[in-house]
Parts: sequence; C-alpha cells; structure tokens
Amino acid sequence: MVKKETEKTTAVAPVDSSHSIGIVAPQEFTFPGPLELESGETLGPVTIAYETYGRLNAEKSNAVLILHALSGDAHAAGFYPGDKSPGWWDAMIGPGKPFDTDRYFLICSNVIGGCKGSTGPASVNPQTGKPYGTDFPFITIGDMVAAQRRLIDFLGIEKLLCVAGGSMGGMQALQWVASYPERVRSAIPIATALKHSPQQIAFNEVIRQSIMSDPAWREGHYYETGQPEKGLAVARMIGHITFMSDQSMEEKFSRRLKQGQFNFNFDADFEVEGYLRYRGANFVKRFDANSYLYITKAMDYLDLSGGRLIAPKGIDTCFLVISFQSDWLYPSHQSQEIVRLLKRRQVDATYCELKSTYGHDAFLVELEGEGTLIRHFLERTYAGKRNSNGNGNGNGNKKQ
Amino acid sequence: MVKKETEKTTAVAPVDSSHSIGIVAPQEFTFPGPLELESGETLGPVTIAYETYGRLNAEKSNAVLILHALSGDAHAAGFYPGDKSPGWWDAMIGPGKPFDTDRYFLICSNVIGGCKGSTGPASVNPQTGKPYGTDFPFITIGDMVAAQRRLIDFLGIEKLLCVAGGSMGGMQALQWVASYPERVRSAIPIATALKHSPQQIAFNEVIRQSIMSDPAWREGHYYETGQPEKGLAVARMIGHITFMSDQSMEEKFSRRLKQGQFNFNFDADFEVEGYLRYRGANFVKRFDANSYLYITKAMDYLDLSGGRLIAPKGIDTCFLVISFQSDWLYPSHQSQEIVRLLKRRQVDATYCELKSTYGHDAFLVELEGEGTLIRHFLERTYAGKRNSNGNGNGNGNKKQ
Repeated sequence: MVKKETEKTTAVAPVDSSHSIGIVAPQEFTFPGPLELESGETLGPVTIAYETYGRLNAEKSNAVLILHALSGDAHAAGFYPGDKSPGWWDAMIGPGKPFDTDRYFLICSNVIGGCKGSTGPASVNPQTGKPYGTDFPFITIGDMVAAQRRLIDFLGIEKLLCVAGGSMGGMQALQWVASYPERVRSAIPIATALKHSPQQIAFNEVIRQSIMSDPAWREGHYYETGQPEKGLAVARMIGHITFMSDQSMEEKFSRRLKQGQFNFNFDADFEVEGYLRYRGANFVKRFDANSYLYITKAMDYLDLSGGRLIAPKGIDTCFLVISFQSDWLYPSHQSQEIVRLLKRRQVDATYCELKSTYGHDAFLVELEGEGTLIRHFLERTYAGKRNSNGNGNGNGNKKQ
Repeated sequence: MVKKETEKTTAVAPVDSSHSIGIVAPQEFTFPGPLELESGETLGPVTIAYETYGRLNAEKSNAVLILHALSGDAHAAGFYPGDKSPGWWDAMIGPGKPFDTDRYFLICSNVIGGCKGSTGPASVNPQTGKPYGTDFPFITIGDMVAAQRRLIDFLGIEKLLCVAGGSMGGMQALQWVASYPERVRSAIPIATALKHSPQQIAFNEVIRQSIMSDPAWREGHYYETGQPEKGLAVARMIGHITFMSDQSMEEKFSRRLKQGQFNFNFDADFEVEGYLRYRGANFVKRFDANSYLYITKAMDYLDLSGGRLIAPKGIDTCFLVISFQSDWLYPSHQSQEIVRLLKRRQVDATYCELKSTYGHDAFLVELEGEGTLIRHFLERTYAGKRNSNGNGNGNGNKKQ
C-alpha cells in the first residue's frame, strides 16, 4: 500500500519544482568561423546552443561553465514551458542548490558535433545546402572547447570561476584547463579520465560498428531516408549496460521475468531485457546516429596524459576530482591518475571517491555526497580560499 | 630482432605437438528421440558430435566428460589431419597433461542447439526437409545435458569420473550434477555461475538484438540467402570485450595506433579496434547466428540456485570450483556462491580463485595454476580419496 501511495503522489507531481530555477529558454550563439580544427580541417559558420541560469555579477567573476556528457544537451536545469521534466542536472543547479543560482552565473554549453542545437553532422553544409552527414569534419574534445571559448568570449567573461562536468563533461573540463588555463579558476572533473583505456575505446568502437552496420546508415547520408534506428538502438543498449553496475542491475531487475515465466521465444523474457529495449528504442527518437559516431570518436582521441594537461609554466587552477566506487566504465583509478598528475605538478587538488552502487550513472543520481563536495569547493574558490592541501595564495580574486 | 626470431619460429612450428594426443577424428552419435525438452516441445532425431581421447578402462571408471563454452565444439584436443592448430583445450588434455590421456578416457561432447556437428537450428527439419531456422525448439542447459546423457549411456558408462568445463561448460557440469547426481563422481565447474546475473543477461540480450536487427537475419530463415554477417560480427565484438579484462586489453593494446596517427575517419584508428573487427569478421565464418541466439538464451534460462543444484537426498559428488581474479563476466563471487551452496549441504568442495589478468579468457589460457589444481583433484578422486575438507569416505571406488 505504501508503495502505491508513493506511486500516486509521484504521478501527480513528478518533480519537486519548488527550488527550481523555473522556466528557462534555449539560447544560440553563432560565429562565422572558420574554426580551425585539430584534424586540419575547418568548420564554419558555427552555432552553439546554450542556456544560462542566475546572473553574472558586475566583476564577471561568478561564471560557472557546466559541460555535458555524450548524449546530453545544454538544458541542464529548469523547465521548458509545458515540460514535466526539468534539465538533466536540475537537482544540482538552482536557488540554494550546490551550483547556487543565487550566487553564481551558470552557463551550460552544448558541444559541436552534437544534435541538440549546435552545429553537427545533421546541420546544413553551406557548401551543398544539404545536411553534412559524414562530410562533417572530425572534431576533438579540444575543438569542442575551442568553440565554447568563443561563447565565453561573447559573454564577456575573462575568467570562469569553474568548469564542471561528468563523464565527457569532465573531459571537456580537463580540456579547458589544458587549452586555456588562464581562463579557468577551478575545475570539477567527475567520473572521467585523461584518456580512454582500450576497453573504453572498445565499447565505443562496438557502438560505432553497430550503427555503421545498419544498412539504413547509408554511409552517413540518411537524413532524407531516416535514421539507422536498429543499429542506433543496439548501440545505446550497449551504452546502458556500461552506465550501470552489476549491483545496481541486481537491485533494479534481479532475474525478474516480464511474464512470470519463460517465453521460449526471442521476446524479452527478463525485465532487464525489456528495459534495455525500451531505452534503445527511446534513444533513436532523440539522438542523431552520426552525432553518436563523431562524439564517441572525439572521446577516444582525447589524451591529456603526460605533459598535455598542465602547461609547462604551471597552472593556477584548483581542482575537485570526484569518482564513484561502482563506476566500472570510468573506474576510480582513472580519476586517481588525474590527481597524481596534478599533485606531481603541485597543483591544488582535492579528490574524493564516493560510495555508490549506481555505476557510471552515479554522477547524475548520487546527488547528496557530490552536491556537498561541489557546494563547499565552489564556496571556498569563490571566496578566494584554496583547498586545505593547497598553497593558499590562490589568484587572490576575492570577490565577495 | 628477438621478436622477429620468435615470430619466425612460430610460423614454422606453431604448436609444440610433442605431448599432443596426435591425430584425432570427429565422431557422431544419433538417437531417434524424441527428446522431451524443458519447453514442452520435442526434438528428434538428435545427433551429437563428440570426440574421445585415451582409453576407457575395463571397469569403465576413468571417463571424464569435457564440456565446452558458448562457441566451442567437440574438438578439445589433438589435431585433425593437416591442421596446424590443435583443439581448444589441447594444453590441458593429452599424455601426461592434467587431463592425462594415459590414465583417463576423455570425452568431449558438443551441445545441441550448436552448429558444430550436433543437431541445431541449421540442421534439416525432418518435417520440412529444410533447415529449422527459428522453427528449432528452444533448448535449455538441462536439455543439452539430457542429450549428452544418451551419449554417455551409448558409450556404456554408468558413472563418470568427472564432468569439467569453463563458462557455459561449467554450467553444463553443474547441470549434470543437478540432473544426474548418481552418474557423476566429481565436477570441475570453472569461471561459471549457478545463474546469470542481470548484467550477464543484458550482454546476451544486446548480442541477440545485434543479430536480430540485421535485415539479413530474416527472422532466422537465412540459410539460402546467407548469414546476418554484420549483426553477428558486432555481437561477437561485444562478446570479446567481456572475455578480456581492462588490464589485459591495456597489456595487449594500450592506446597503440594502427597507422601511428589518427585517421580522422571511421576506419580503425586504434589496434584494439582492428582486433575486434578482425575477431568479429572471423567469427561469422565459423559460427551460425541462430545457434548464438539459442545458446545464449539457454544460458540465461539456467538457474541452479536454491535447491536446484543438489537433490533433496544429498549428493556424493565432490567438487573443484575455480575462478579467476580479473574475470568480470563471471566474477569470483558467482563461484563463491556455488561453493557456499555446496558447503551448506555438506558437499565435498574445494575452491580456488586463481590470479590472472586475462579476464574470462583465463580459463583457456592460465594453464599452469588451473592444470595443477585439476591434475591433483582428478588423481585424488580417481584414487578414491576425497578432498582434505571432505569426509573422506567417498564412494570407495578405488580403481588403481
């Protein structure tokens, strides 16, 4: 009975919006380019979809750039008119929340190569008047961040208080420090890595092969004929397995059967099969297959190990690095590698491995521990204080 | 230079066959059936492909049944005339080897549902004169073992000295004990489980979806038009990721590039991508897509937890349970669950978790530790002695 009550309540008011930033609107920034890409090719014009929450202060010192994961978008918080679900990190961003919109100016930027309002393979190629498809140039995490820098320039922000994100968002945060250390006071890379291991590359490669093996992919030129839905759905199913942990799957599904008995056919017998099919089928409605190809490739290409993260003259950026115990896609040892690199270069860095059974999804759902860490780290950074293990002199920009 | 030398030597004499059982021949056993299946359907006639090595003694007390994994076959040891590579467990089976053909009579039986000589979806359906395809009835691990029991009957063996196998071979070994405890003196389940976790089911489901999403699958009736090669290749690539560990991939591939630089296209940039593509493409030449579907389903259906492994009156079978540290597909806690179940029922059981970085593949390649354990366990069992932690009275059949 208790369970039913809860379900009923949930159905009536699915989200507690009392502390939400409220109604938000998508924004666009376009620059003519050409953007010089790491591949040697160029891209232009370039549009970046983004959203902002809170207000930029007079000194322009309270801006935090939120960076999203592989299939994320710029809609990190608040509601679009009529929507029942808020942005993907709404629990973390809003008045009084860890990314406190009463104090900070939040910017969430979509990535180029994506399909959520920024220039990507589904955009019209000005050379042909048709969607780029696989004529879209290859992009890197460095290119994504180079485009975002233009947005930050446009917004008139000289130095970001923080760059923060999980998974590929964390990769972008690290890349911001690597590319523009003087533009970033602090960084919060979560559940991420300096570079993909061969196992991470392997999963991405199978995801790509699943898409490209679908005849409907048509070498990437399918915009008139329709998505390679089947290949993309299988690709996303693979992804979902890696986002969860063995334990969270056990807790969520165990071996429960959909019909209470075996079908003895190839329909979904187990609940976990039905869940994966549902997630796969849903994904094809909201994401472009070519974007999945380009973005996974960009992730695989990233390598900020060795001397590539920190400029030879050193950096003044301070770090909060977070990983989650049951995350086997971006295991804690990869976050520890980031921290070792920072410590060796005497960079001010705090590391925390949080307990969780949620696997890689934890960065989106383990809000309490993560939120507390982020709240305190941001407060100290904003107040001009460094972390307890830092050297304390910081950049001295105490703005409050 | 040293590496080149080794390669040259390997090319000339790829396998040390000095301790091999030598030339072997495939054998077939057919019974008319009908075999009553767990689904309620029937199958007949039923052919089982098998091989034997060594000699059955006069008392017929030295027979060991070797059971293979998902894509394995009956060719476990020795060479077919002209072949350069021996059977899949040749390092373990032969004169003086752990499964010592000078002492034991080895039988390796293929499974029904497969495509390596036993009745499966590619076999001719006597009702139609055409290959079964997906008209083949659904089978379980219990059905596979029921068919194997007919083979053991046919060979005149009342009681097997041992049933042994890794992965799905271990599942069959456990099922033998569950179905016919009085026919099995000992069992060696390796890198296996009483039942698949939702994560294991999830991987199998994505594998199936990859095959069934390929239009060439044609609902399973493709024998005149050709395999769903692309879907099957992707399915196998997924499998290969789960067979290796993060660490073994790092050791084997790291982030080495095939061409020394990024391609900036969708060809394989990294060696690990090339490896997976190669393994996928190769697999479609040797395995039937429908068999992959049926066998993965049989594995997912298995559940020998609770009271299903051990008959209410108890069993006299003794066990050697082996797992490998880096195996995340069949993690050690699943082997420990088997051992806990056995210990609770006071069954004579030895457990060893072996160190390895090879992941699930370890049971095929970590030969030394595994071989020593198996050799000693078999010797003691054959001599009528039980394990040190057993009650020592055994079944008293000391035959040597």
